[in-house]
Amino acid sequence: MSVEKLIQSALEANLALPAHRLVTFTWGNVSAIDRELGLVAIKPSGVPYDQMQTRHIVVLDLDGKVVSGTYRPSSDTPTHLELYRSFPDLGGIVHTHSRWATIWAQAGRDIPALGTTHADYFHGPVPVTRALHPDEIELDYERNTGKVIVETFADRRLDPVAMPGVLVLNHGPFAWGGSADEAVHNAVVLEECAMMAWHTCQLNPHVLPIDENLLRKHYERKHGSQAYYGQR
Amino acid sequence: MSVEKLIQSALEANLALPAHRLVTFTWGNVSAIDRELGLVAIKPSGVPYDQMQTRHIVVLDLDGKVVSGTYRPSSDTPTHLELYRSFPDLGGIVHTHSRWATIWAQAGRDIPALGTTHADYFHGPVPVTRALHPDEIELDYERNTGKVIVETFADRRLDPVAMPGVLVLNHGPFAWGGSADEAVHNAVVLEECAMMAWHTCQLNPHVLPIDENLLRKHYERKHGSQAYYGQR
Amino acid sequence: MSVEKLIQSALEANLALPAHRLVTFTWGNVSAIDRELGLVAIKPSGVPYDQMQTRHIVVLDLDGKVVSGTYRPSSDTPTHLELYRSFPDLGGIVHTHSRWATIWAQAGRDIPALGTTHADYFHGPVPVTRALHPDEIELDYERNTGKVIVETFADRRLDPVAMPGVLVLNHGPFAWGGSADEAVHNAVVLEECAMMAWHTCQLNPHVLPIDENLLRKHYERKHGSQAYYGQR
Amino acid sequence: MSVEKLIQSALEANLALPAHRLVTFTWGNVSAIDRELGLVAIKPSGVPYDQMQTRHIVVLDLDGKVVSGTYRPSSDTPTHLELYRSFPDLGGIVHTHSRWATIWAQAGRDIPALGTTHADYFHGPVPVTRALHPDEIELDYERNTGKVIVETFADRRLDPVAMPGVLVLNHGPFAWGGSADEAVHNAVVLEECAMMAWHTCQLNPHVLPIDENLLRKHYERKHGSQAYYGQR
Repeated sequence: MSVEKLIQSALEANLALPAHRLVTFTWGNVSAIDRELGLVAIKPSGVPYDQMQTRHIVVLDLDGKVVSGTYRPSSDTPTHLELYRSFPDLGGIVHTHSRWATIWAQAGRDIPALGTTHADYFHGPVPVTRALHPDEIELDYERNTGKVIVETFADRRLDPVAMPGVLVLNHGPFAWGGSADEAVHNAVVLEECAMMAWHTCQLNPHVLPIDENLLRKHYERKHGSQAYYGQR
Repeated sequence: MSVEKLIQSALEANLALPAHRLVTFTWGNVSAIDRELGLVAIKPSGVPYDQMQTRHIVVLDLDGKVVSGTYRPSSDTPTHLELYRSFPDLGGIVHTHSRWATIWAQAGRDIPALGTTHADYFHGPVPVTRALHPDEIELDYERNTGKVIVETFADRRLDPVAMPGVLVLNHGPFAWGGSADEAVHNAVVLEECAMMAWHTCQLNPHVLPIDENLLRKHYERKHGSQAYYGQR
Repeated sequence: MSVEKLIQSALEANLALPAHRLVTFTWGNVSAIDRELGLVAIKPSGVPYDQMQTRHIVVLDLDGKVVSGTYRPSSDTPTHLELYRSFPDLGGIVHTHSRWATIWAQAGRDIPALGTTHADYFHGPVPVTRALHPDEIELDYERNTGKVIVETFADRRLDPVAMPGVLVLNHGPFAWGGSADEAVHNAVVLEECAMMAWHTCQLNPHVLPIDENLLRKHYERKHGSQAYYGQR
Repeated sequence: MSVEKLIQSALEANLALPAHRLVTFTWGNVSAIDRELGLVAIKPSGVPYDQMQTRHIVVLDLDGKVVSGTYRPSSDTPTHLELYRSFPDLGGIVHTHSRWATIWAQAGRDIPALGTTHADYFHGPVPVTRALHPDEIELDYERNTGKVIVETFADRRLDPVAMPGVLVLNHGPFAWGGSADEAVHNAVVLEECAMMAWHTCQLNPHVLPIDENLLRKHYERKHGSQAYYGQR
């Protein structure tokens, strides 16, 4: 992939956020990585979506050094870079303040796996991170946000490929995938599952998670070598 | 009806799903049956709605043998076929993960008949199926989904004409009708009733079902020999 | 007003229902009355809104005798006529199954006056009717629906001008006004107030109605001889 | 700024209200002030947004004397003027009956600061005013609405720059900013935060406010001399 293609994929994925009604104003950002080039393309900070063009996209290396673009990158860039460094399978990352996922993040609760819609994409409950310590907030806040996500996945022995999203406590969701486009796709699904889980829990406060067999069945219907959903 | 007309009716009904905001991405599918030809036309698996054309629609016989089309049929096809074999009055079937009906399915609760909107279409509470056993999930999962729907209707002595929908536990709704178009119509109504029932139960947790006389009156106003709604 | 103008006003008001997202499919209907001519124009039964034209509108006298139009009038016509006969100030009537007002109707609860949005249009809680008796459902159901509305207003000593709407138990809202256009306006406001009241009651189950002075102040700001809202 | 520019900015900000879905019918109004000219431009009362043009905008001095325009100003004008006189940093003010903020106002509860979305704009819980006394309602109601907002900020030692919004009990929100455009921006954010806070509190009734360090961090990321969000 050329840098131009990387920038283009980052732009298109960012523009998909308002199209899917995941963002208000300039909230939210998507990045794409080219692992061979070792470069990340990300949304500029505070630029309105309806004016965004390829010239606004910022390209950095994995140490955060800007290699292309004159705009300031998203203030959340250090979080993206931390995730790319720790999770080598990620090709794209999305952060939003989408309503329903943010509600769960604010409530400090994992999103339970209550149905096959969830199981088709997320292999278990979507985790919420622990609170940051005051010193983690004071210095390198955005990088520490990435670190606490990585810590959460390590502590819970989660595979970021089978669990392509997380809730940052009191903040909002991050989602990812093999590409920026797939990351946005998963962010949309996360929002949908968050909305339905919220209402399911209100309707039946004692609801149990989906049966483990059904969870696995649906995940494997869409993912892995036995998948039989979609066209080959 | 010719095969071409059957395919066309299946296509149009599938395209009606996003128009009625019942689906996200490629979730959901509609099929149509021609009883004389013994053929079913159904959505292909994983093809985006905004690209779908008649050439994508797959035609099968009731044993699941593809007789027309080069695409793979919806992974839920065996559920559709099971329903067509068991319920001879069905002319079209819809499956979606529409939000409100899915919430009830995830909560494992029937949608109670709380008002005349519900009574106009569904003659009583919309039932939710029992959990599938591990072996029913492991092998022939989609066909067993159809079987548990049929079992639910048999156990509860429900007439699929008077109850044109069901909730599959932890999954989502199926709806049907005399045609694919009518099936979509009923799926829209089911979603509307599910939304209103959810909020009615929260507002009044002790709410009683609609009076039996009013339930029957409204159902008969729209259906059967005494119907007086609409133009003759 | 000529019959043509009456028909035109009824058509436009009916078309305003989908524009305000108050209806699904053909649910809902609006009528307009010309008191001098003694004629009512009303929506035909079951005709889709996107095909509706003046030629579909049915004109009847107050006894229900059709004087113009070849279509069957809305099945709710006897309710409209009963209200016009009993409430002489009404110039237009709307019936819908709009979501939030229907939720309160299904829950069997008045919509309490909790804020100035409500007070600007409805001088107190919007009442819900009593259950109809089996014989009232069996025979002349639609006319009896009108009668139970009139009975509710008589029992509670409500003025239909200061309370331009009602909830029919387990059914949905009726709203009205000096014209068909104003009736639709009030139906939109009723829906908005119903939505906000639902969420206010969930947030604060012990919420008290709006202060009587504030209720009166806001109603009089918009209505009556001392009104000072809008352009003269 | 010329009077023409002031009028233009007030018009554009008013038209932004329906674009952001903050208003129904003619509810809601925006004003803009030119501090050098000592003039306020405000929406006319009861004029539909889709017909509104610069000629409808009314210009007044801070004592409420109309200096330009033939239309009657918004009935809420005295509230705007009171706020401009008391809070010298305000450049624009918005009042709406937007659904979610109004729900909190009707419930009589502050909107708690539960996440970083809130913290990015509002430095703490958004306050709700006390009830007006009968005599405050009877005479100079709209001016007293402004006075009770000012009183609330004084009693709670709030800085209107760090807290650019308030809930008027049983009524709805006011929001403001350095310009009319920024005021609308803050009104949109307030609505978004109100929606998410409502659902967070339902999901976790014992939820605690966001950590003080995180609240300050996010506010300072966007505001003040150390801000690093957006382009310089």
